[in-house]
Amino acid sequence: MTQKASFQSIILKLQNFWAAHGCLITQPYYTQVGAGTMNPNTFLRVLGPEPWKVAYVEPSVRPDDGRYGENPNRFQLHTQFQVILKPDPGNPQELYLESLKALGIDPRQHDIRFVEDNWEQPAISAWGLGWEVWLDGQEITQFTYFQQMGGVTLDPVSVEITYGLERILIALNNAKAIWNEEYGAGVTYGEIRRREEFEHSKYYYEVADIERARQMYDLFSAEADACLAQGLLVPAHDYILKCNHAFNILDARGAISIAERQAFFRRIRELARRVAEGYEEQRKELEYPLLKESQTSKVKGQGEGRSTFDLRPATFILEIGVEELPAGDVDSAYDQLRQRIPTLLNELRLEHGELRVFATPRRLVVSIDSLSPNQPDREDLVKGPPADKAFDKAGIALPAAMGFAKKNGVNTRDLEVREEGGGKYVFAVVKQKGRPTPEVLAEALPILVESIKFEKSMRWNDSAVSFSRPIRWYVALLGDMIIPFEYAGVVSGNVSRGLRPYDSPEIKIPSADQYFSAIRDAGIMLDKEERKASIVEQVKQAASLVGGEAIIEEGLLNEVTNLVETPTAIMGGFSDESLSLPRDVLISVMKKHQRYFPVEKKSKVESQKSSDGATFNLQPSTLLPHFIAIRNGDDIGADTVREGNEHVLGARFADANFFVREDVKLKLEEYRPQLSKLTFHTKLGSMLDKSERIGKLVNDLIPIIRLEHDEAIFARRAAYLMKADLTTQMVTEMTSLQGVIGREYALRSGEQKDVADAIGEQYRTVPRTKAGLVIALADRLDSLIGLFAAGLAPTGAKDPFGLRRAAIGVVQPLIEHDIDFDLADAVRKSAKTQPIEVKQEVQKQILDFLAGRLKVVLNEAGYRYDVVEAVLAEQSASPAASARAVKQLQAWVGRQDWSTILAGYARCVRITRDQKETFKIKEKSLREVEETTLYEVFNLQPTSFHGDVDAFLKVVVKLIPSITSFFEKILVMADEKELRENRLGLLQRIAGLAHGVADLSKLEGF
Amino acid sequence: MTQKASFQSIILKLQNFWAAHGCLITQPYYTQVGAGTMNPNTFLRVLGPEPWKVAYVEPSVRPDDGRYGENPNRFQLHTQFQVILKPDPGNPQELYLESLKALGIDPRQHDIRFVEDNWEQPAISAWGLGWEVWLDGQEITQFTYFQQMGGVTLDPVSVEITYGLERILIALNNAKAIWNEEYGAGVTYGEIRRREEFEHSKYYYEVADIERARQMYDLFSAEADACLAQGLLVPAHDYILKCNHAFNILDARGAISIAERQAFFRRIRELARRVAEGYEEQRKELEYPLLKESQTSKVKGQGEGRSTFDLRPATFILEIGVEELPAGDVDSAYDQLRQRIPTLLNELRLEHGELRVFATPRRLVVSIDSLSPNQPDREDLVKGPPADKAFDKAGIALPAAMGFAKKNGVNTRDLEVREEGGGKYVFAVVKQKGRPTPEVLAEALPILVESIKFEKSMRWNDSAVSFSRPIRWYVALLGDMIIPFEYAGVVSGNVSRGLRPYDSPEIKIPSADQYFSAIRDAGIMLDKEERKASIVEQVKQAASLVGGEAIIEEGLLNEVTNLVETPTAIMGGFSDESLSLPRDVLISVMKKHQRYFPVEKKSKVESQKSSDGATFNLQPSTLLPHFIAIRNGDDIGADTVREGNEHVLGARFADANFFVREDVKLKLEEYRPQLSKLTFHTKLGSMLDKSERIGKLVNDLIPIIRLEHDEAIFARRAAYLMKADLTTQMVTEMTSLQGVIGREYALRSGEQKDVADAIGEQYRTVPRTKAGLVIALADRLDSLIGLFAAGLAPTGAKDPFGLRRAAIGVVQPLIEHDIDFDLADAVRKSAKTQPIEVKQEVQKQILDFLAGRLKVVLNEAGYRYDVVEAVLAEQSASPAASARAVKQLQAWVGRQDWSTILAGYARCVRITRDQKETFKIKEKSLREVEETTLYEVFNLQPTSFHGDVDAFLKVVVKLIPSITSFFEKILVMADEKELRENRLGLLQRIAGLAHGVADLSKLEGF
Repeated sequence: MTQKASFQSIILKLQNFWAAHGCLITQPYYTQVGAGTMNPNTFLRVLGPEPWKVAYVEPSVRPDDGRYGENPNRFQLHTQFQVILKPDPGNPQELYLESLKALGIDPRQHDIRFVEDNWEQPAISAWGLGWEVWLDGQEITQFTYFQQMGGVTLDPVSVEITYGLERILIALNNAKAIWNEEYGAGVTYGEIRRREEFEHSKYYYEVADIERARQMYDLFSAEADACLAQGLLVPAHDYILKCNHAFNILDARGAISIAERQAFFRRIRELARRVAEGYEEQRKELEYPLLKESQTSKVKGQGEGRSTFDLRPATFILEIGVEELPAGDVDSAYDQLRQRIPTLLNELRLEHGELRVFATPRRLVVSIDSLSPNQPDREDLVKGPPADKAFDKAGIALPAAMGFAKKNGVNTRDLEVREEGGGKYVFAVVKQKGRPTPEVLAEALPILVESIKFEKSMRWNDSAVSFSRPIRWYVALLGDMIIPFEYAGVVSGNVSRGLRPYDSPEIKIPSADQYFSAIRDAGIMLDKEERKASIVEQVKQAASLVGGEAIIEEGLLNEVTNLVETPTAIMGGFSDESLSLPRDVLISVMKKHQRYFPVEKKSKVESQKSSDGATFNLQPSTLLPHFIAIRNGDDIGADTVREGNEHVLGARFADANFFVREDVKLKLEEYRPQLSKLTFHTKLGSMLDKSERIGKLVNDLIPIIRLEHDEAIFARRAAYLMKADLTTQMVTEMTSLQGVIGREYALRSGEQKDVADAIGEQYRTVPRTKAGLVIALADRLDSLIGLFAAGLAPTGAKDPFGLRRAAIGVVQPLIEHDIDFDLADAVRKSAKTQPIEVKQEVQKQILDFLAGRLKVVLNEAGYRYDVVEAVLAEQSASPAASARAVKQLQAWVGRQDWSTILAGYARCVRITRDQKETFKIKEKSLREVEETTLYEVFNLQPTSFHGDVDAFLKVVVKLIPSITSFFEKILVMADEKELRENRLGLLQRIAGLAHGVADLSKLEGF
Repeated sequence: MTQKASFQSIILKLQNFWAAHGCLITQPYYTQVGAGTMNPNTFLRVLGPEPWKVAYVEPSVRPDDGRYGENPNRFQLHTQFQVILKPDPGNPQELYLESLKALGIDPRQHDIRFVEDNWEQPAISAWGLGWEVWLDGQEITQFTYFQQMGGVTLDPVSVEITYGLERILIALNNAKAIWNEEYGAGVTYGEIRRREEFEHSKYYYEVADIERARQMYDLFSAEADACLAQGLLVPAHDYILKCNHAFNILDARGAISIAERQAFFRRIRELARRVAEGYEEQRKELEYPLLKESQTSKVKGQGEGRSTFDLRPATFILEIGVEELPAGDVDSAYDQLRQRIPTLLNELRLEHGELRVFATPRRLVVSIDSLSPNQPDREDLVKGPPADKAFDKAGIALPAAMGFAKKNGVNTRDLEVREEGGGKYVFAVVKQKGRPTPEVLAEALPILVESIKFEKSMRWNDSAVSFSRPIRWYVALLGDMIIPFEYAGVVSGNVSRGLRPYDSPEIKIPSADQYFSAIRDAGIMLDKEERKASIVEQVKQAASLVGGEAIIEEGLLNEVTNLVETPTAIMGGFSDESLSLPRDVLISVMKKHQRYFPVEKKSKVESQKSSDGATFNLQPSTLLPHFIAIRNGDDIGADTVREGNEHVLGARFADANFFVREDVKLKLEEYRPQLSKLTFHTKLGSMLDKSERIGKLVNDLIPIIRLEHDEAIFARRAAYLMKADLTTQMVTEMTSLQGVIGREYALRSGEQKDVADAIGEQYRTVPRTKAGLVIALADRLDSLIGLFAAGLAPTGAKDPFGLRRAAIGVVQPLIEHDIDFDLADAVRKSAKTQPIEVKQEVQKQILDFLAGRLKVVLNEAGYRYDVVEAVLAEQSASPAASARAVKQLQAWVGRQDWSTILAGYARCVRITRDQKETFKIKEKSLREVEETTLYEVFNLQPTSFHGDVDAFLKVVVKLIPSITSFFEKILVMADEKELRENRLGLLQRIAGLAHGVADLSKLEGF
C-alpha cells in the first residue's frame, strides 16, 4: 500500500513546484473571499502590462455551499491553490499536468479532461475562457484565460489555475469522503474542520441576522466609497470583499430577490470597476516597475520539411492544434471550414480532388486530395477608356491609351477595340501566370484561420489574436513540403501532438499522405461520426451488461463526442438508496453535471415528448443505479477512473439528498409564505404578491378556458402552490428543477396528483393539462403586463426577464390546445391586478408584442410568411383562431386555381383601395347585367365569417365568375358619377368581405 | 557574497522545519487578526487536555502600527509565523534555536537573547510568561508559555512561538529596511506591500469613518451573541475578531477614551470567555478525540555520580538550571536563597563552612563549604506525666510511665524524675542518631526549591509546579556524590549547561569542588558583582573611545547585569539627524526599549536629580550619536551584532521621528480640543472637562501659593495646555513621555519657556517651578477629589488610578517647596468644581488619606515614626508645616537632656490625662511656693506656637526646673478638692501647650 497523501503535503508540494517554476509564493487573504481570484494578488495584479507569477493557498468561503459537514466533498469553506501566470507562458496546460504529476497523479492511470468553462464573475465585471479540469469525473481545477477584470480588458492575458485541494486529496487517496483523510501530523481533516463546517452551515442558513447583514453591507459599501474618494485602492477592495461576503450571507439566508441581486451586483461591480481603473492608473504613474524588457518569442514551427516541390498534384493537410475546444466550437469550426474551403480553393484557383474536414477538441483538420501544384495561367479582358479617347482618328495612341496600357502591363499596340453597351472601348488582354500553390497557400492559410469565428473567443498572447481557445501548433503540408506561415504567434511545421492522456507526445508527419495513418496510430479518432458510433455502441453494450438500456439523448451524445479524441465507455454504479431521489434530479445530475448516460430498465414506459423537445416523464422512475461515462483515452486505469466517477456522482447525489431531506421537513404549502422574501421586482412586489395576482387571474381565466369543475379546483390549488418550490433548497441549488421539484414535493405533501402535475407543467412551453395551462398563462401574462408597465419591455437583444419566451408561452399553448382566447381582454384583466398603472398605450404595446411573437410561432410552424402576415393583419387577438386561419389560408394558397381566385378578388380590392369614401349601392343605378348579376350573387352570400378563411374564400370562389364577367364588361370608372360610385360601392362590399379574416393583399401574387 | 534570503524562502523553510518536527501546517485565518494567537488553531486548541502541535503563517493587522510605508520595519500588517507546542516538549527553546539555524542564523555570530516578556491580552482574558527573543537587539520572536486563554486556566500549558518574519528577513540580509529585500521570485517586499502600507495607514488614521466603525462593532458583537446563543463557537469567534478589528480602527482614529476602552474590552472579554468555555465543553462532549495515551516522562537526571560517600565534610553545590529568568526574579531568588539557606542548615542540624549564593538568568547556585557528612547525634529531654502518676510509691512504673517510655523508645527504668514549675514529672532522655547528610538533603532540596516564590510565576509541564520560568536541570553534588531528588518533573544530576550562545553545551561536573572552575571555563560569570563591574568598566571604556561619557543609571545597570552570563559591550552609532529628537525621547528609547547605555559629551551640564530620583535635564541635549549594548557572550560576530542593534535603534528613531514630524504639523494648542474625545472617567467627563476644572482650581491656588505676577500668567497658560500632548501621536505611542513631549511641543509652538517648563514638570513628583507646582497640585487634587467622590478610593492593594501617588504628589512638593497650604480648604475648592457632589464625609476621607500619605513621606524622609506620629497627631493640614515641626522635634529628641525634658513634661500630661473636666486656676488657692513659682514662670511664657515645635519646647525647657520642684514638693492629688483642682488646672495649662504642635505622648520614653 502506498503512502497516503495528506492535505498539508499537497500544499507543500504545490508551493515547492510553483516556487521552482518562478512563482512568488504568497499567503491567503485576510478577509473572507469567495475565491482566490478576489485576492489582490490576482484581482489587481492581472491588470496592466506588468508580468506576474504568483501562487498561494486561498481558503474560500461560500456560505451556500455549506452542508453541515454532512456532504463528503462540499463545504462552505474549501481550499483553493491559486496560480497566476502572466503572460501566458505558452504551455500552461503542460505545466499544470506536470504539477499533477508532482502530486502523484499519473495521467495514464486517470481520466483527465479539460471541460469547457466560461468563467464569469459579474459581481466584479470579470470573465475569461477556459476549462474545468476533471479528474475521473471530479472537477479538481479551474483553468482560465482571464480576458477582463473589474471591467478592464486585460493585456496581456493571465492564465489562472485554481486547484480544489480537498477534491485532490480525496482523489489521491481514493477516499469516499474528506473527513477521515489526514490533514497533517496524523490529524484528520475532519478533526480540523468538520465541527466548524457544521457551525458555519448552521450560522449561514439559520442564525445570521438578515437585518444586520444588510446593515453591514451598507456600512462596508459606504467605506469602500470613502476609500475610493481618497484613492485608497486596497482598503476599498477589502470592503468590496466584505460587501461580497455580506451579500453571500444574505443569499444563503434566502433573503435576496432576483431584482435585488441585480442591484447588489451593480453596486459591487461599480466599486470593483473603480478599484481596477484606479489600479491601472496607479501602476502607470509608477511607470510599471515590474515591466522588464519584453521578450516576445514566436513559437517556432516544429520539424523540417522539404522546401522544393514536385509539379505533380499532391495531398494537402492543414491541422490547427488547439487547447481543448468547447464541444459547440468543435462543430462550429467544422461547419465553417466545410463551407469555406471549397470557396477558398475556387477563389485561389486551385484545382483539387476530394476535400475533407475533421474536428476534434484538440485539432481542426483540412485534407485536400490531389491539390494542383499551381494556379492555371489566366487571361483577363480589362476594359479601358472609350475608343475615341484612346486613339485619335489616325489610330495613334493618346495619353489615355498609354496610361491604360502601362497600368495593365501591355503595349498600346496590343490593345483591342471592342463594342460594349452600344459604345466602343479599348480592351487589354492581361495574361497572368499561375502562382505556385505553396506560395498561394502560405498567404491564404493565416487568413483562413483568422476567418474562423466563434460565439465566444479569447486572446491569450501578444499576437492579440482571438480564437475559441489558444492555438498551439499547425501542421501544414503539401505532400512532404511544409507550407510556411505564422498566425497567432505560432509558426507552421510538420509536427502534430498526440492524445492528452499520453502527454500529448509530438508526432512528426513526414508527408501529408501519411497524416491519417500517423494520427490513427496515435489512437486518435478524427472522424466525429466514427467517434459517435463508437460511443453509441459502447454505451449500449455497457447498459446491456446490467440488463438495462441507456438513455442516449442526441444533445448529450453530440457533446460527449466532441469532448474526446478516443472514447472509452466506463460504467459505474451508485447506491440503490439514491434511486429514491426524484427521477428528474437523478437524470439532471447525471446528464447536465456529469455528462453521463443514465441507464433504465428495458421495459420502460414510453416517455412523452413535449412540443419544446424536452423529454417529460411523469411515470415512476425506472432508472437503474448505473451510469456510463465516456473517458478520453484507452482503458488503462479503468478501475480508478470508475471509482473516481462513482465518488463524484455519489457526492452529488448526497448533496441532492441533503436538500431533499431538509426540504421535505416542511410541506410544500409551508414554503409559500417565504415567497414574501423573494422580490419579483421592486415595483411589482414579492413573489408572494405575484403568486396572489396569479391566483386572481386564474379565477378570471377559468371560465374563459372553460375548465370543468374538478379542473378548476385543481387549477386554483396549483396556482396557490406553484411558486412555493422556489424557496426550497433543492430549487435554490438547481434552478432548472423548478416546477419538477414543486410537483415532487406536492405529491410528497399529499396534494392531489392533478394539482402536482399542473405545478410540474408550469415551465413547459405547452402544459399538457388544462389546469397546467391556465396557471402557466396567468403567470406569463402577469410577468408581461407587470414588467411592461414597469418599463422593462425587451429592447434590442436585451431581454433580461425572458419576456419573449413568456409571450411565446402565451400564444403557443393557446394554439396547441386550440382555445379561443381574447388576448386584449386577458391583458385588461391582468392589468387590473397590478400594483402599478398599466396605461392604455402600454396594453397596446403588449398586444403588439404578443402579435409579434405569434407571427414568429406561426412562421416557425412552417407557414408561409405572406400567409401569416395576411391573417395576422386581420386577426391576432386570438392565437388559436389565427392559427386555424393560417392553416386554412395556406391550404387555399396551395390550390391549383388559387391564382384565378386571388386575381379576381384582387381586382376588387385594388380598384377600390384608394377611395377615401365608402359608397352606398343604389339598386336603381345597377345598369348593366354583369353588375346586376354580381350584385345578386353577392347578396346571396353570408358576409360575416368570424375569421373563418374557408368560409370566406368559399364565398369568393362563388363570386369569381361574376367578378370576371363584371370586369370584362363593365367600366368601373365611368364618367357618370352615379354609375361610378355605385360600381365602386359594389366592389367595396366584396373587398370588405376579408375584414376580420385576412388581408389578401399581403399575399404573393396579389 | 552569500545568497540573500527571501521572504518566501523563510516561510518555506520554517514550514518544512516544523512539519518535520511533527507540526500540522495550516493557513492564515480568513479574517483580520491582530496576532496569530487569535487564530482558532491557537485560541481554541490550547484549551483542554488534548495535545496539539501546529505551525502557520499569520499576516497580522494592527492599524496603529501603520507608518505609511515610511518606517523600515514597522507596518500595519506584519507577518507572523506561529508555532504551538502542547504540551511543552521539554526543550522548546532548543527547538526554536534549531529553527533559527535552519534559517541560517548562527547563534555564535549573533546576540540572541531571551528578554522577559509577560504577555497579556486582556481583551481575551489571556496571559502567559515568556520572553521576547532579541536578535542583535531586534525583537524577532515572542516566546510564551500560555497560562490562561479566554479566562480558562490552561492544563497543559502550551508553548507559543511567534516569529516576526519581516524582522527576520531584515536581520538575515543585514538590511537597512525591508522594502528592497526580496519577497520571492525576484520581486521585492516593497513592490508587494509598500503601496498597500501607505493606503492602509492613510485609511486607518485619516479616512475610516468613526461612526460607521462603531456601528460595525455593534453589529459584529450582536452577531457574536446570536452565535453563542446557538452554541456556534467558531462563527462567534469570527465576530469577536471582527469586533477587535473594528475596535482597533476606532483606536487608530483616536476615538476611544480610556473609560470606553475598558467597556469595549469588557464586552470582548466576556464574549471570548463564553467561546472558550463553550469550546472546553464541546471537546469534553466529544470525549477529547485527540487525547492519546499520556506519555509522561520525567526528565532524567543526567550523569553518574558516586553513591557512597566519605565521612569527611565536603563541598556541596546546588545548581537550579532554568530558562532565562526575568532580571527582577534573579535578584529575588538570590535574596530568598541567601536568607533561607542558613536557616535551613540550622534546621537540618548540618554543620558547615562558608556559604555562598549566586544567581544568573540561567542558574541559581548555592555553594556550601565543608558540609558535615551527617547530622550530629542528639539527646532530647522529653517531659512526661507527673511523677506520682508515673510511679507508685514503691517506684514501680504505672501504665502512664510505660506508655510514655514506649512512645519515646526508652525503658521505664531510664525515665528520670525532675522538678519543673513546682511539680515533679518524669522525663525521658531521647537519643537520636544523626542522619547522613545526603539523605537529609534529598528530602530538603525539593522543599527548598519549592520555597522560592516569585511575583509572577507560571506552570509549564504536568508536574503543575509554578516557578518564574521552567526549571530544566539540577546539579546537586555533595563532594562527588549526586544528591538524588526530583522536583517539577526534573531529576537531579551532575550535568550543568553552558552559555546560550554556545548552544548551552552540557557540562559534566565531576565533583562539587570542581563546579566553579568548570563554570568559569564555560565562560560564565556567576557573580553578579563581577558581571556588574565588568559592564561598568567596558561601558566606560567604550564611551571614552568616542570622547564621551556613558549615562549609567543604576536601575538599568542592575537589569542588564541580570540579563547576561557573560557581558560584552558593543558600541554602535546612530545618525546625527536623530539627535534632533527630544533628548528624553532618545534616552527613553535607548534605555527602556533597548536597554542601551546612552553616551553624552563629557562637558555635560550637570543634570539635576529630582526628589523622585529621575534624572531631569532641561538643558539642550548633549547626547552623542552612540549607544552601548551589552551582549550575552564573547565578541565573535561583534560587527553583525552591532549592525543589527544599529538597525533596530535607527528604526525606532525613525518611528519617533515619524510621530514628531506628524505631530508638529499642529501647534500644541490645537491638540487641546481633541481632549474632549478622551474620557477621564464617565462620571467626571472628558480630559477636556478635567483640564478646565484644573484651570479653575489653578486660579484659586495662585493666591494661596503666592505666585508673582508673571508666574501666575505662566501657570494659567500652562494649565490650559498641560494635557494637550495626550492627544499627540508621540505620547499615544510612548505614554511615559507625557509632559516631556508637551514641553517640547510647547517650545516648538512658540510658547514661553516658563510655560513649557511648567508643562514639562507636571508629572514630576516635585515640580521645580512654582507654575509647575501649582498646575501639578491642581491636577492631582482634582483627581483625588473627583475619583473619591465617584467611589473610586483605593482599596487594599488596588489603586488603579494611582491615587496614592497623586496624594504623595500633593504633600511632597508642598514640603519641599515649604509652602504653607491648607489642604482642607483646597479640597473644598476642588470639590466645588466637580460635576458630582463631594460630600462632607468624602472630604474628610480625602484629608485622612492625604494625612496617611504625609506620614509615609515623612517616614521615608528618615524621621522617626514616633516623632512623625507625635506631630501629625496635632498638625496635618499643612504638609509643609508638619514637615518643619517633625524636623524640629526630631532634633529635640536627639538632645542629651531630652529625657529630662520629656519626663518633666510627661508628668504634667500623665497626671491630668484622665480628667474629664478642665479646671480653672484660682490664684488665691496657690498655696505652696513651688506651685506659685511654676504658675508665675508659666505666666511669663507665650502659650500659642502656630505649630512651632522649637518655640513650644523652649517654653517647656524653661518650665522644667519649676515642674521638677513642683512634683518634688507638691501633692497634686490633695484631699482638699480646691487645692487638688487648682493644681490639676495649672498642670492642664502646661500640658495644653502642646495642642496644635505635637502630641508628645506618642514619643518613645513618654
